[in-house]
Amino acid sequence: MPEFLKLLPPAVALQSFLQALPDELQTQSERVKTRDALGRALAEAVTAPSPLPPFRRSTVDGYAVRADDTFGASASQPAYLRRIGEVQMGRAADLALRAGEAVTVHTGGMVPDGADAVVMLEDTQTVAQDEIELLKAAAAGQNVLLAGEDVKAGEVVIEAGSLLRAQEIGGLLALGVTEVNVAMKPRVAILSTGDEVVPPEAEPAAGQVRDVNSYTLSALVERAGAIPLRYGIIPDQLEALRAAARKAHAESDMLLIAAGSSVSARDITADVIREMGPPGVLVHGVALRPGKPTILALCGRVPVVGLPGNPVSAMVVAGLFVIPVLRRLLGLRGPAWPATLAATAGREDYLPVRLEMSPEGLLAQPVYGRSNLIFTLVRADGLVRIPGEATGLEKGERVEVRLF
Amino acid sequence: MPEFLKLLPPAVALQSFLQALPDELQTQSERVKTRDALGRALAEAVTAPSPLPPFRRSTVDGYAVRADDTFGASASQPAYLRRIGEVQMGRAADLALRAGEAVTVHTGGMVPDGADAVVMLEDTQTVAQDEIELLKAAAAGQNVLLAGEDVKAGEVVIEAGSLLRAQEIGGLLALGVTEVNVAMKPRVAILSTGDEVVPPEAEPAAGQVRDVNSYTLSALVERAGAIPLRYGIIPDQLEALRAAARKAHAESDMLLIAAGSSVSARDITADVIREMGPPGVLVHGVALRPGKPTILALCGRVPVVGLPGNPVSAMVVAGLFVIPVLRRLLGLRGPAWPATLAATAGREDYLPVRLEMSPEGLLAQPVYGRSNLIFTLVRADGLVRIPGEATGLEKGERVEVRLF
Repeated sequence: MPEFLKLLPPAVALQSFLQALPDELQTQSERVKTRDALGRALAEAVTAPSPLPPFRRSTVDGYAVRADDTFGASASQPAYLRRIGEVQMGRAADLALRAGEAVTVHTGGMVPDGADAVVMLEDTQTVAQDEIELLKAAAAGQNVLLAGEDVKAGEVVIEAGSLLRAQEIGGLLALGVTEVNVAMKPRVAILSTGDEVVPPEAEPAAGQVRDVNSYTLSALVERAGAIPLRYGIIPDQLEALRAAARKAHAESDMLLIAAGSSVSARDITADVIREMGPPGVLVHGVALRPGKPTILALCGRVPVVGLPGNPVSAMVVAGLFVIPVLRRLLGLRGPAWPATLAATAGREDYLPVRLEMSPEGLLAQPVYGRSNLIFTLVRADGLVRIPGEATGLEKGERVEVRLF
Repeated sequence: MPEFLKLLPPAVALQSFLQALPDELQTQSERVKTRDALGRALAEAVTAPSPLPPFRRSTVDGYAVRADDTFGASASQPAYLRRIGEVQMGRAADLALRAGEAVTVHTGGMVPDGADAVVMLEDTQTVAQDEIELLKAAAAGQNVLLAGEDVKAGEVVIEAGSLLRAQEIGGLLALGVTEVNVAMKPRVAILSTGDEVVPPEAEPAAGQVRDVNSYTLSALVERAGAIPLRYGIIPDQLEALRAAARKAHAESDMLLIAAGSSVSARDITADVIREMGPPGVLVHGVALRPGKPTILALCGRVPVVGLPGNPVSAMVVAGLFVIPVLRRLLGLRGPAWPATLAATAGREDYLPVRLEMSPEGLLAQPVYGRSNLIFTLVRADGLVRIPGEATGLEKGERVEVRLF
């Protein structure tokens, strides 16, 4: 298909799009409780207000000792130490250890001053109430977690633009950081157009179909950490689409228009986007199947994406072009895993696949179906990218699957 | 470490645990709006109430024709057809096509009776108002999507136990299925124990540390589609833990106890779990590092997991043993991707790694740090499993990473 050679490869199209976006595009930040911040994007780096752990902790149950006192100790030639007390869990070690002494400590408990190692209980024997035998020598530092070994006070512990996962939530709370600044969730307006499209609740008359894209796009947007705003189904008329798109544009941080499937409907979409303000349309058409009639635009401060009306195409285009912009709006650092998109010439194809376990590992089985068929994706676990330079894939070839 | 040989490999431990769970463990179902069902587990299979697409649709803009009338047509010897009208988008095709006739159709529009193919606009020329030239022959079925080609009426389109992703939501709404039965979110009670543990809001005194596990476990449970119920921090006393655990057990579908880190705290946890009703403790100790002191139990109808107190250990154990049980409670089919856990002898180690792009592809760099250090996980993208039979990993060896 020589027409594809005139179109931008997806990676180049995305790069042009992202480069055209103003630096200050990121949404404002808001302060939320750390325990409610799962899945949010950290807006400001967090530095540790105090070290972690805050004090020297034992990593085992046993005896805090001076390593020097254990030199040469073995089962046949034990070292003998005087047990002078116990550090209770959750309490300060209120005694200091001198030569020849040992103190009972528990896992996670504080190691008393003077001690520089902990001997495991299993490597000792009690001789009397206040005397123990050590059956093994201990090296300095053994079984001791130093104060600040996890993080030091003042250290940047989580960078701005980090996604807050379970471990970030736990780490922040371990430091007593109970509130954080996160990027506000971008509001993403979604319009579906098409004279043939009716809402899911409606009983379609002959020639009509129910709206799919408003809901698949909403779900993808929500999963990416943004707020979908559905503006409903707009008829394929310039006036109607213009009015709806302007309202949506004014009320959102990003605008998605899933075009009606006919060529004239797409033309109306392109015309409306062109009118909405400079710099306007940046990319019109991408060397991508499904997804060729994609429009990437910036109208004022609002990124606008015109997506093809076919459900499979719309999802592929959303994954390739909408999600990276949402990450930019959220200020998220780094690429999403798995990283994708190489800047190769020619058309890229995306093929839905189902994953199956086999003795050789995971097998990606193609799910054949046209891009008009939403259930093609229901039967699939992800998409395989077939690069522009490839003419196809061989059976058994290793592929990278973008999981949904 | 010979002691590990006495312990069950993780896969065997998980299997014993899952096999002991009663078949009817799954939570009850509730009816929700399909558009709000993202991430939920479908409780009942959905069958298509009507076919999709509901009528024959054109996949291009062009002319609906009888393929027989186009036989042999080419640019040098075009076929001539009479254009008898147009099918409007969203309307029924209210005319039937006879030999020698053509009807204008748009992408997604209805193909009229009598036609069996659509010729693309690009392969035609208009000769007069009601006459067109076809420059290419069309095969029967060309550019026509059949009624029911995506799904047939009565067909099971989504199985019970499916996770509802963006495409399932879209597919259900395309069929007019605006409400679905989904598994109720399991309530998962989370207790942290430890005399040294204080809430995140508190300023720890010497010897105290802030609670981490309540929040990392809450986040993991929430991500898995369940409702975390935090019961706070319980002192390492048999009475206190027994009372709190019984209350939590009575009020939840699953119970997690993140034990205090000392051996005595763990013993108390084990004792309390043992008392909570038959069949009781199923597995005590797993050949896993970090995560050896794991307890897997079933008390009455409530699965109970005793997790080690170290934050990294707790997260590894939650990933290996808690998430699969939550999937069972939700009735989710099939293994979570990536599938894990092979039933090999000996100890399995899990090593936190950071992923980096390199010319050779993704590189997994070990993030060293003890399992007491929560920020070890903050610096990591996932965990690498080092199987029991391996003595380590070589640089450059291919590994499977469980992404967080």
